[in-house]
Amino acid sequence: MKNTVWHGARRRIRMQDVGPRDGLQIEPVFVPTADKIALVNALSRTGLAKIEVTAFVSPKAIPAMRDADEVMRGIERAPGVEYAVLVPNVRGAERAIDVQADELNLVMSATETHNLANLRMTRDQSFAALTAVTTLGHDARIPVNISLSCTFGCPMEGDVPMAVVLDWCARFADLGARGITLADTTGMAHPAQVSAIAHAFRTRWPDLQLTMHFHDTRGLAVANVLASIDAGVDRFDASLGGLGGCPYAPGASGNACTETLVHALELMDYDTGVDLAALLAASRRLPALVGHETPSPIVKAGRRLDLHPVPEWFDEVAARARDRGPRI
Amino acid sequence: MKNTVWHGARRRIRMQDVGPRDGLQIEPVFVPTADKIALVNALSRTGLAKIEVTAFVSPKAIPAMRDADEVMRGIERAPGVEYAVLVPNVRGAERAIDVQADELNLVMSATETHNLANLRMTRDQSFAALTAVTTLGHDARIPVNISLSCTFGCPMEGDVPMAVVLDWCARFADLGARGITLADTTGMAHPAQVSAIAHAFRTRWPDLQLTMHFHDTRGLAVANVLASIDAGVDRFDASLGGLGGCPYAPGASGNACTETLVHALELMDYDTGVDLAALLAASRRLPALVGHETPSPIVKAGRRLDLHPVPEWFDEVAARARDRGPRI
Repeated sequence: MKNTVWHGARRRIRMQDVGPRDGLQIEPVFVPTADKIALVNALSRTGLAKIEVTAFVSPKAIPAMRDADEVMRGIERAPGVEYAVLVPNVRGAERAIDVQADELNLVMSATETHNLANLRMTRDQSFAALTAVTTLGHDARIPVNISLSCTFGCPMEGDVPMAVVLDWCARFADLGARGITLADTTGMAHPAQVSAIAHAFRTRWPDLQLTMHFHDTRGLAVANVLASIDAGVDRFDASLGGLGGCPYAPGASGNACTETLVHALELMDYDTGVDLAALLAASRRLPALVGHETPSPIVKAGRRLDLHPVPEWFDEVAARARDRGPRI
Repeated sequence: MKNTVWHGARRRIRMQDVGPRDGLQIEPVFVPTADKIALVNALSRTGLAKIEVTAFVSPKAIPAMRDADEVMRGIERAPGVEYAVLVPNVRGAERAIDVQADELNLVMSATETHNLANLRMTRDQSFAALTAVTTLGHDARIPVNISLSCTFGCPMEGDVPMAVVLDWCARFADLGARGITLADTTGMAHPAQVSAIAHAFRTRWPDLQLTMHFHDTRGLAVANVLASIDAGVDRFDASLGGLGGCPYAPGASGNACTETLVHALELMDYDTGVDLAALLAASRRLPALVGHETPSPIVKAGRRLDLHPVPEWFDEVAARARDRGPRI
């Protein structure tokens, strides 16, 4: 009974926080550079394996990330933590290489419609762009990760055949990517599908770094993580406080929440290496940065054993009950 | 690979909605009797196995349930659906028997502190009360279910030893209860613990009806359901729209949301027997009854394949991209 996915037995799981990039990117307020740096520094001290710090994108396209260079130069890098950055093109890659990012993260979509809507390029154009970026990364000896959006479904096209996903992964592997992220961009993944795709990926590329990136849009983030672990996956993206959303489903939850995953996995005896108290302390500072509460259930409800005092009338009620003896 | 918990292979799961009782009970507004009846009737047509319709409690203690008799007499009973009611004492049982409820659901807590705080009785007193109620139920040939609150943890005492849970279950079984509900009253359950308790229960009482009642307070409802299924459980309480909360964690999510579980399980090829579209139609009527949005993620985001149209500027952007050819 013990040797199941429900009992971690201290198996190592690597947690990667994408909040400073994926979370802050869609916030309407510009978070001051010093606050971004403080946030990344706080995350650095929690035991995360990787942090996606910022995006080297056009400041006109995404003003929230216009201070990418300053943020990368300003953070204190902790040993053992990788500092990844999102890079859409050669210009961004040059900037990322200039600040010595630990990883270039490139993105394209599994479906033509989402790629055109999100990146304004065909998938072939995106692949050409990320081929050029990968070459730059290799020349600079910086590892490249490629994220495939809409791996588990497209909000406009619907289901994505697994063969399409695996074909794109094969092209990324052939390019020499160190890692691939299978991203559930709009929360369409479910455990049966996740299990099938993760098994197929792991069988074909046992040595490639594989990250699963889930959204909790339909309440399935933790279940999808567990289905992934059961198929041999050990790396997960998540966002502090659950920040980050989906423009196609207003009001819906966004990224899987880092502290929810860490809380769940540590209770199940997995070894995330993350100090949950430190993570929660960082998460509690987010509302001051973004101007609203976060969806984090652990911030709202506390950890499982954060207990509550008895009500003030308790002693009196208890004494009266006990005085009545064992019967009613 | 297919023979795992992640692939349901049409295994039958019975869904039990507790929204009309557990959900409405804590709402500050009194939902008019006719609306309660319409809600239960709508739920009756969705394919649920059981509905907890109301509670035969003191109208002074819980005014929201003061129309229990009228509601039970007013609903149209659908074949194959069981109509359960919560009953705290002999007086309530007499009323429930009078309206021919299909099941009496009795409640006590696994911990002394929660039982005293919630029911103002010691556990021994509660057990004496439910012994008397069980006798009445048996005399009237109405099956009895006993719910054990705080099975997975107490918000005031903390961890509950599994031996304590199993000892109470043994006493309930000895009383002749048809079923037992293990209730995660404040969302403290996690899959490792659920797996252990469900296995222990199923080994000891293979023929007793076992229901798991989870809250999604810390994002674990679906994962706990899957851990339960993997241990042989096939009955789950949940609440339409995720209504119902926890007085110890303000702002936290309450009961597992019925449509979230049905959506997840049907995607995983389990047979819940529930018509999800009909369930969602019923859920969308809740805000008008309770005066606020519900936490239902499926109402907010839609089902997995409820697709979105392309943006209005899509065709122009796509044409421009395609004109550029395959390179960047």
